[in-house]
Amino acid sequence: MRVAVVGATGAVGREMVRTLEERDFPADELVPLASPRSEGKRISFRGEEFPVRPLELEHLRGVELSLWSAGATVSRAVLPEVAAAGTVCVDNSSAFRQDPDVPLVIPEVNPEALRGSPRPGIVANPNCTTITLVMAVAPLHRAAGLRSVVVSSYQSVSGAGMRGILELADQVEKLHGTEEHLVRPDHHALPVGEVFGRTIAFNVLPLQGVMEGEWTGEERKLMAEPRKILGLPDLEVHGTVVRVPVVTGHSVSVYAAFDRPITPDEARDALRAAPGVRVVDDPGAGVYPTPLDAAGINDVLVGRIRQAEGRDDALLLFACGDNLRKGAALNAVQIAERLFP
Amino acid sequence: MRVAVVGATGAVGREMVRTLEERDFPADELVPLASPRSEGKRISFRGEEFPVRPLELEHLRGVELSLWSAGATVSRAVLPEVAAAGTVCVDNSSAFRQDPDVPLVIPEVNPEALRGSPRPGIVANPNCTTITLVMAVAPLHRAAGLRSVVVSSYQSVSGAGMRGILELADQVEKLHGTEEHLVRPDHHALPVGEVFGRTIAFNVLPLQGVMEGEWTGEERKLMAEPRKILGLPDLEVHGTVVRVPVVTGHSVSVYAAFDRPITPDEARDALRAAPGVRVVDDPGAGVYPTPLDAAGINDVLVGRIRQAEGRDDALLLFACGDNLRKGAALNAVQIAERLFP
Repeated sequence: MRVAVVGATGAVGREMVRTLEERDFPADELVPLASPRSEGKRISFRGEEFPVRPLELEHLRGVELSLWSAGATVSRAVLPEVAAAGTVCVDNSSAFRQDPDVPLVIPEVNPEALRGSPRPGIVANPNCTTITLVMAVAPLHRAAGLRSVVVSSYQSVSGAGMRGILELADQVEKLHGTEEHLVRPDHHALPVGEVFGRTIAFNVLPLQGVMEGEWTGEERKLMAEPRKILGLPDLEVHGTVVRVPVVTGHSVSVYAAFDRPITPDEARDALRAAPGVRVVDDPGAGVYPTPLDAAGINDVLVGRIRQAEGRDDALLLFACGDNLRKGAALNAVQIAERLFP
Repeated sequence: MRVAVVGATGAVGREMVRTLEERDFPADELVPLASPRSEGKRISFRGEEFPVRPLELEHLRGVELSLWSAGATVSRAVLPEVAAAGTVCVDNSSAFRQDPDVPLVIPEVNPEALRGSPRPGIVANPNCTTITLVMAVAPLHRAAGLRSVVVSSYQSVSGAGMRGILELADQVEKLHGTEEHLVRPDHHALPVGEVFGRTIAFNVLPLQGVMEGEWTGEERKLMAEPRKILGLPDLEVHGTVVRVPVVTGHSVSVYAAFDRPITPDEARDALRAAPGVRVVDDPGAGVYPTPLDAAGINDVLVGRIRQAEGRDDALLLFACGDNLRKGAALNAVQIAERLFP
C-alpha cells in the first residue's frame, strides 16, 4: 500500500509521518509531497529515507491513500482530481469541511459519517481547535443534550506551522532580558512578524486569520464545524479565537448549556468513559490541564469542571489538546485507519 | 498633606508612587512603608528620596491618606486600626471588598458609593481583572441592562507582583532556544517555580490562587465584585481565570447578554462616550486590543465587538487593561482624588 503525505515537510505533515509510523499503519511505501522549494529533502519513515517530490499528479498514481496538509488553496486546486482518479484523500484544510457531500469526522465522535458518503474519496479533518472542543463536549452532549456553547480559545503558534514557531522564538530572542521593562513597553520598538502581524511573544492576539464580516475565519470554523460533526445544525456556538505564546497545545475555556441537568460528577464519569479523553480534574491537588501537558500526547485533557452558579443545566470546563496530533495528524490517521481497517 | 503607600516596593506600590507623581496628587510628603526586608531602600518621589519604613503605626501618625497594596493578610491585621485613628485607607487587597459597609469603587462607574459610607475611612479597590471587565461592560449595562456575563481571562504574571515577572523571565531563560522541541516536550524536565506552581513560560495555567470549592479565589472575585460595583446582586457571572505568559496587561474575552437588544454600533457609541475606555475595533485594518498595547497606558482597550449569532440582545468583546495601572494603582489614586478633591 502506497501512502502519500501532501505537505510532508510542514509541522502537521511531519507529525502525520510520525503518527503513521507510531501506529504501525500498513503502508508499504511513503510518498512525501511538498512545494517545489522542499525538493531534495528526504523524509525518514520506518528507517527508510523517502525523497520529497513536488505535488504533481504523476507522483500520486497508484497511491491508495493521501493525507493532505498543504492549505485550503492547494487542496481546492488539486485534491478533487486526485480523489476522482481513485486515491482516497483525508484533507486537513478547511477546503471541503462545509461541503455537504464530504464527511467531517472525529472518529471517536461521528465515525458513522464515514459510511456511504455521496462524494467518495474525500474526508475532511476538522479544525484543530474544533477537535479539542468537540472531544470535550461530545460525551457531555450524549449525556445531557448540548444546547449552547460559549468558547474562548488559547491557541498555540504551531497552529500556524513551523513559521509560527520560528516567529515566536525570534521575538522571544529579542525581548528576553527586558521582561521588567515590559511593564511599560516602548510600543514602537516591539518586534512584529509576517505570520502573526503583531507581537506574539509576551502578548496575546485576539485576531487570527482573515475577517469574514465581524468574525475571523478561525472563529467561523469553531462555530460551524461542531454543528456538522455533532449533527446539531441549530447548536449555538459563540466563539472567540485568541493566539497565545505557547508552542504546541490548543486550549479552550468552555461554558456549555444542556437540555437536561448535569452535574460535574456526571460530566467526569461521561468523560472518563470516552475514548481519547483524559480527565485531569483535582484542582485542590494541583491537577488540571495545561497545553504543555497536552503537547506530545494523544489524549485531550479535560479539567476545571464546574457547575455554573445557579444553573443545574450548565457547566464550565477547560480542555487542552495537541493541535498537531489529535488536532490534525492523529485524527487524520485515525480516519485512515477506519477507511483501511 | 502626608500620603503613605503601604507595600511601596512591590510592583503595584511602585506604580502607586509613579501615579501620584504623574497626576500631581497634592501630597507634600511620601511615607513609603513595606515589610522589614525592604528597610534601607529609598523611594524617589518628585525628585526627593524617601526612606522605606516598616509598617508600624507610629509611621502612620499624621498621615491623612494611605494607599495599601500589601496583601489581604496584612490589610486585615493592620488597616482597621489605622483607619480608626483617622487615616483614610484605600485598600488594593481583597480583605474588605465584600464588607457591606466598605465601598468597592471604580470612580468612572460607581463614584456615588464613596458618599456616606457607613464604615468611614476604608475604601476597597477592586480586583485587577474585575476592573478591566467592569470598565468594558458598565457602559453597555447603562445602555441595555446587563443580565449575564461569561468571561475567560488572560492574566499577566505581574498580577502576582515582581516575583511573578522574575519567575517568567527565569523560565524563559531556561526554555528559550528549545522552542522547536516544545512540540514534544520532556514533561519531567519543565521548569517550575514557587509563584505559579507549574511552568508558566510557553504555557497557560487555568488555575490561580487557592481553591474555594470548585472555584479559585480569583474566579470568586471576578464573579462577586461586578455584582457589588454595578449594584446588580443577581447578575450572573460565569468566570474562568487563566494565567498567560504576558508581563503586564490583563485581558478578558466576554460574552454578555442584556435585558434589551443592543447592536455592536450602539455598543461602540456607548463605549466611546465612557471615560477611561478606548475603543480599538477595526479588525479588518488590524485594529484590536492586545495586552502589550494596554501596558503602560491608563485606558482600558475594548474591541472585537460582535453581535452574538441569532441573538439581538447579546454581544461578544475582548478588552485589555494594565493590571498595575487602571487595574490597581491608577484606580486607587483616582479614588483618592475623589476623596481629596
